[in-house]
Amino acid sequence: MNVKPLHPSRTRRGVTPATKFVTLIGDYGTSDFVLKRGDRLHEVTIAYECWGSLTANNDNAILIFTGLSASAHAASSEGNTEPGWWEFMIGPGKAIDTDRFFVICVNSLGGCFGSTGPESINPVTHKPYGADFPDLTIEDMAKAGHHLLNELDIDHLHAVIGPSMGGMIALAYTLQYPDECDYLISISAASRALPFTIAMRSLQREIIRCDPNWNNGFYESDKEPENGMLLARKLGLVSYRAAEEWHQRFDRARVSKDRRKGEPFEIEFEVESYLDYNAHKFVGNFDANSYLYLSRAMDWFDVADFGGSVNAGLAKIHVRKALIIGVTTDILFPIEQQKEIAEGLIKAGRNVEFVSIDSINGHDAFLVDRDHFSPVISDFFSQL
Amino acid sequence: MNVKPLHPSRTRRGVTPATKFVTLIGDYGTSDFVLKRGDRLHEVTIAYECWGSLTANNDNAILIFTGLSASAHAASSEGNTEPGWWEFMIGPGKAIDTDRFFVICVNSLGGCFGSTGPESINPVTHKPYGADFPDLTIEDMAKAGHHLLNELDIDHLHAVIGPSMGGMIALAYTLQYPDECDYLISISAASRALPFTIAMRSLQREIIRCDPNWNNGFYESDKEPENGMLLARKLGLVSYRAAEEWHQRFDRARVSKDRRKGEPFEIEFEVESYLDYNAHKFVGNFDANSYLYLSRAMDWFDVADFGGSVNAGLAKIHVRKALIIGVTTDILFPIEQQKEIAEGLIKAGRNVEFVSIDSINGHDAFLVDRDHFSPVISDFFSQL
Repeated sequence: MNVKPLHPSRTRRGVTPATKFVTLIGDYGTSDFVLKRGDRLHEVTIAYECWGSLTANNDNAILIFTGLSASAHAASSEGNTEPGWWEFMIGPGKAIDTDRFFVICVNSLGGCFGSTGPESINPVTHKPYGADFPDLTIEDMAKAGHHLLNELDIDHLHAVIGPSMGGMIALAYTLQYPDECDYLISISAASRALPFTIAMRSLQREIIRCDPNWNNGFYESDKEPENGMLLARKLGLVSYRAAEEWHQRFDRARVSKDRRKGEPFEIEFEVESYLDYNAHKFVGNFDANSYLYLSRAMDWFDVADFGGSVNAGLAKIHVRKALIIGVTTDILFPIEQQKEIAEGLIKAGRNVEFVSIDSINGHDAFLVDRDHFSPVISDFFSQL
Repeated sequence: MNVKPLHPSRTRRGVTPATKFVTLIGDYGTSDFVLKRGDRLHEVTIAYECWGSLTANNDNAILIFTGLSASAHAASSEGNTEPGWWEFMIGPGKAIDTDRFFVICVNSLGGCFGSTGPESINPVTHKPYGADFPDLTIEDMAKAGHHLLNELDIDHLHAVIGPSMGGMIALAYTLQYPDECDYLISISAASRALPFTIAMRSLQREIIRCDPNWNNGFYESDKEPENGMLLARKLGLVSYRAAEEWHQRFDRARVSKDRRKGEPFEIEFEVESYLDYNAHKFVGNFDANSYLYLSRAMDWFDVADFGGSVNAGLAKIHVRKALIIGVTTDILFPIEQQKEIAEGLIKAGRNVEFVSIDSINGHDAFLVDRDHFSPVISDFFSQL
């Protein structure tokens, strides 16, 4: 097992003492990681965090893939006591019970929280890859997770779990390694992106690319396309939440006069202020090129690539049971797409539990709606 | 009646021999048009087109207000034989029958197709207003329409009609001049903007403002914020259509290789190409500041301003009958908001016909779904 203490690039975002790194064994006896679209990455490092203990026969591992913007820090630990992005879900006695399971969360290949991505140093040029980072797919992210497990001597997963983009990676994982995983939990994912969602993501990418600081993907770390990232993140946030939630939270409430700057067309409604506050938290903490690569990978992903049609692809998933969760108010990964996954698996004879969650929180519900999500996942594991 | 042959500003977009102009009589014996928020505009010109003939007793006039981006050219005529934006609706024997009615369509105050707006020459500085154009509201646009009717010696309307922003202006018209209009047709409008819609519009405005060419609202006509307008229009288009329509039209179809440029993260899916084509048609043909002023006016509009609550406001509308039309797939002015208008009017004792149109075309359905829209409006007028 080839564990490196420090990642060989510039100072990494989101890396704490809890972050572990492995450099993956390459393909075909080289140190190169071969990507789906044909390019190669030299010396791929994957950042991850883990909780709980592996049993003697290595049979209690759960692998979690994340949404676009999350790091591997899904839950707190001694190494990083800050709450993780899924703090309510992962821990001793929680739905994903770390007293029972060895839980691993990976920072996706192409991400910017420790794993190899566009910000990493290209070993050929000794400069960050930038837009020279090769074409990246969801399938590559799944493969990187699989290689990580190899490094950890885990040849079989109890479960793979993923929300949003992570759900797509989890689907790709079970498609690529159909006999190496018992259970699948896919949350607000999609078998393939549909045009409305492609449009929303494409527009975010174009907004970033239109920022002169993007510089065709070769920007300095002190001159990132922050304006583009701010606007793109706002558009992302609009798609992650549900209109009814904002109606209840903000209605037409105004920002008080003392919080205004007097600029023309400035922020006036609380909903605008909410977007501004949350988007600013993101800017500077996420690499713009990572955003572009991960976002495009979601547009490209298509379960039909695995069998000629979505259902033929889904039929290649051989888990013992799948839990497919969707949210009724999700406009980005709509509930119909969750039904499509569940029905495709059922048609193929799989054992499927489909849960439609009537949450007001839209696509982001898995991050915030503990009351709806925890029992569903807790019950799934307790009934196995 | 003070009709000017030419508009006193730089060459106007969308002006043809069919375009008529009036300079409005001012308020309080001056030539100033007093706006709701307190500012004054000197010598307001309104561009309009009209079809059909006024009866001897001036009782067959229909006034149409437009959506954000439309000109007064709602239908073709001798002066402009190009199809108008509502060509299928307006004409001899059509739903809005110009054999029967004298139909007027106005370019909204603040617009850029002949009416006074940010592109017009500020008579004080002799330069375009730009961002010095005063705070503009939906109520001001309704008032400009009313003043136009005064100039045309029409003191009573048979009907006022408006889709989208035009529906808000039509509501404001019937609120401000409750005894001067018999019938109201409101299409995909809103009594007030809700946070999701505010967020979508606010983000469009911010995208425009972030274009360095916007220059705080003072750009030269040869250096407009075209990039910002392109991106803002794309976002607008995303909100005007329905996900299901795009799914049926584009699914995951790709743009052929010979239509690609080889740029990083370029357009790849047909839905992206559709957005790009349609947004480019808009850029250069609409003034960015007009976009900002009209967009913000929609966020500000609130029927509750007329009575303390939406229902109290709606109760002040005294038309003989109202036709309230909404579209089930509209995410920008959702069907619930159309119901709210209809129910508020019914509570106030008005005669209301509420029609929920099950069209796949989203907010834009009134522009493209002739089969659903024409019969509804035709039947309404024939049953009066």
